[in-house]
Amino acid sequence: MTPGALSTDLYELAMMAGYCQAGLTAPATFELYTRRLPPDRSFLVAAGLEQALDFLETLRFEPADIAYLRDLPQLAGAGDAFFDEYLPRFRFTGEVWAVEEGTPVFPPEPMLRVTAPLPEAQLVETALLAFVTFQTTVASKAARVAAAAGGRGVVEFGARRAHGVEAGVLAARAAYLAGCDGTSNVEAGRRYGIPVSGTMAHSWVLAFPDEESAFRAYTGSFGARAVLLLDTFDTLAAARRVVAAGLRPSAVRLDSGDLAGLAQQVRSILDAGGLAATRILASGDLDERKIAALVASGTPIDGFGVGAALTVSFDAPSLGAVYKLVELERGGQAVGVMKSSPDKETHPGRKQIWRVGGRAAARDVLDLEDEEGPPGAEPLLEPVMRDGRRLGPRRPIGELRDRCRRELARLPAGVRRLDRADEYPVDLGAALRRAITRTSLSARRRSGAS
Amino acid sequence: MTPGALSTDLYELAMMAGYCQAGLTAPATFELYTRRLPPDRSFLVAAGLEQALDFLETLRFEPADIAYLRDLPQLAGAGDAFFDEYLPRFRFTGEVWAVEEGTPVFPPEPMLRVTAPLPEAQLVETALLAFVTFQTTVASKAARVAAAAGGRGVVEFGARRAHGVEAGVLAARAAYLAGCDGTSNVEAGRRYGIPVSGTMAHSWVLAFPDEESAFRAYTGSFGARAVLLLDTFDTLAAARRVVAAGLRPSAVRLDSGDLAGLAQQVRSILDAGGLAATRILASGDLDERKIAALVASGTPIDGFGVGAALTVSFDAPSLGAVYKLVELERGGQAVGVMKSSPDKETHPGRKQIWRVGGRAAARDVLDLEDEEGPPGAEPLLEPVMRDGRRLGPRRPIGELRDRCRRELARLPAGVRRLDRADEYPVDLGAALRRAITRTSLSARRRSGAS
Repeated sequence: MTPGALSTDLYELAMMAGYCQAGLTAPATFELYTRRLPPDRSFLVAAGLEQALDFLETLRFEPADIAYLRDLPQLAGAGDAFFDEYLPRFRFTGEVWAVEEGTPVFPPEPMLRVTAPLPEAQLVETALLAFVTFQTTVASKAARVAAAAGGRGVVEFGARRAHGVEAGVLAARAAYLAGCDGTSNVEAGRRYGIPVSGTMAHSWVLAFPDEESAFRAYTGSFGARAVLLLDTFDTLAAARRVVAAGLRPSAVRLDSGDLAGLAQQVRSILDAGGLAATRILASGDLDERKIAALVASGTPIDGFGVGAALTVSFDAPSLGAVYKLVELERGGQAVGVMKSSPDKETHPGRKQIWRVGGRAAARDVLDLEDEEGPPGAEPLLEPVMRDGRRLGPRRPIGELRDRCRRELARLPAGVRRLDRADEYPVDLGAALRRAITRTSLSARRRSGAS
Repeated sequence: MTPGALSTDLYELAMMAGYCQAGLTAPATFELYTRRLPPDRSFLVAAGLEQALDFLETLRFEPADIAYLRDLPQLAGAGDAFFDEYLPRFRFTGEVWAVEEGTPVFPPEPMLRVTAPLPEAQLVETALLAFVTFQTTVASKAARVAAAAGGRGVVEFGARRAHGVEAGVLAARAAYLAGCDGTSNVEAGRRYGIPVSGTMAHSWVLAFPDEESAFRAYTGSFGARAVLLLDTFDTLAAARRVVAAGLRPSAVRLDSGDLAGLAQQVRSILDAGGLAATRILASGDLDERKIAALVASGTPIDGFGVGAALTVSFDAPSLGAVYKLVELERGGQAVGVMKSSPDKETHPGRKQIWRVGGRAAARDVLDLEDEEGPPGAEPLLEPVMRDGRRLGPRRPIGELRDRCRRELARLPAGVRRLDRADEYPVDLGAALRRAITRTSLSARRRSGAS
């Protein structure tokens, strides 16, 4: 499912052609980051690197791609050599540094840094942003949802809410990586080895002459693994029916109404009926706040299914991440560059993120790559691709998930709080601050601004 | 890019197996609809049908799919016949009725209706919802954005904000269908024949020793088609530089700052410099409200690039659509069914939507399919697939877009207003109301509720 080379904005291709014509093919460095946190987020969880690297490794222009591009009047100025020689031989040959998936990051820290011949580094902007930003969006939400559940299981249920089928698969991956316990998405289960789980739908109940025969048929087929959905007609009547029929489902699911009140009453009915081992799962427009409230009130819910809130990160469905040129070669020298558009300034130079504080992270320092970093601090950006080839094998999703749990636990509790969280400090290092001043002055001269 | 049969929730597969075991394989009908409009929407624009039908036509279980499913403990109760006989031979053999893409619809009108053997109709729930809901979400937003632009061009720019690369391609399709004029997404352009367009990025300007040489190089490559981005350092200084350098770009783009004020000043600079034909494009976190305000104030902006607001429908990134069993065969008879969960009731029976009012649509009537509908009213649901095969060819996207424009124009102006829009009346027909009462009573009896 790795998309092709046309998965980009037209201007990337136009610029690529223009750079080739202008002879600007020396290595340049771009960094991918967000300028600020969305509302109700106090950290981001980096994700999507694996799909980004897959894309870079397999990026080719097929003859049909080139034929389409050649016919575009917008690219008429690109020249024959671009279509006849450059595109057919195109490979991504660059170097990538990245924060490992599952690592908490804070704006404006780069999650990914690409150094490649300028036309290559430019082309991949659009796809890298789409891959990394989307999974980071979902992972950042999932970490909050999983934290709210306080150890109760959370299953990602939102395939039907996703922005198409493929988005659902990627969302399931990001949600699991950042702390959810599984997904209902079978393709995600197969492709990434994520635990899958499922219950039953209202249609199952409606397909039978009455609720009891529907429940009997399901437990008949799936035995001790069956999860029975109680709210098709009347949740409490359904719970009594489960007991009266002598069924022993693994769990029951509540999907509407006052979940807290219903869970209490259903728990009582089940316990009184000898079904103390039958768990109660809840779903229905849940998000981290509703889950936290249910958990805080001691509601006897054992697990949650979460859909749109998680799968499309409903309250913040896009992070506004950017991929910005920070350094290029000019006259054989590496030169930091920055733009100065209002509220959209960039920071020049290749950077490293230093996490300070060992087991209890206290702050980060963002500085130029060749600085040493604070004593004992740990660098977060690591080389992951060189000459267009991955360094090292793919990491199993379970490892990434374990890493994410550990790394989140290192953050101060106040930063992890769901509401009114503390801000995690990100300091700009001295060398980076000097580079900003220097580049800003030079940019003013270059722009001719007074 | 049509996804496979595992693109579903696990429970769909479990229920499919269970229905087969229970002998519930007679045709059943599901309808796909939304219960209510999201905030700030007064209509939806149906979209995504083409991808839904592609999915149904090509749906197969490959041997690797079956091997994965066979190993899932959750499906251990499915039985060998399910894996050995049912899944390998599985095809979607059903009938689909749908509202043509580009048609405005209103909750709770079904956009799609599937009648197929119950296990087949159940399996496809997840993917149909993902395909139809996502494109409908974006198309509904795009219609608002295009209306706000009042005839000025709108280009969908949000591939980098999309929920993965594939979501970006689908969003570009939906946006164009509902009134945008093009997309920056090259793959969408190639796959669906959508006009593509592009400008330049800040990185282009930063890659050259100074802004003037960057502008000269771009117009050198792309001539009269070049669009120059002005805000890398200082928008007005850049506009003066374009004039002073004697460049004649097709357009300039403003991407930050006070767009209204800058557009006025840039227009003056360009006009005074003999560049009256150079258009001004604007981008930067635009949505329909900001565009409407710019247009209302007479700002000389000729076109808009819109990203996240449109591509992920930022303010309403999911519609909460459902796919509900409404009818099945019981004892050889078609029987309407409904659930009665609080706030989540469904309406029984196969339905038709009647649009009343000819060239000026006045109201819709939702009634059972076999009713005649109000005199002169037009039925919106049409057969599009029979025996699992498409009826008729794919319609070119341009035709769908023209249809959308016509159908939107039929709606009352008050319904199309961006803010405080009138509610479009959707009446339930007499036969449907009788069916609801009848089914509701029968459901109470079946559920055993008092």
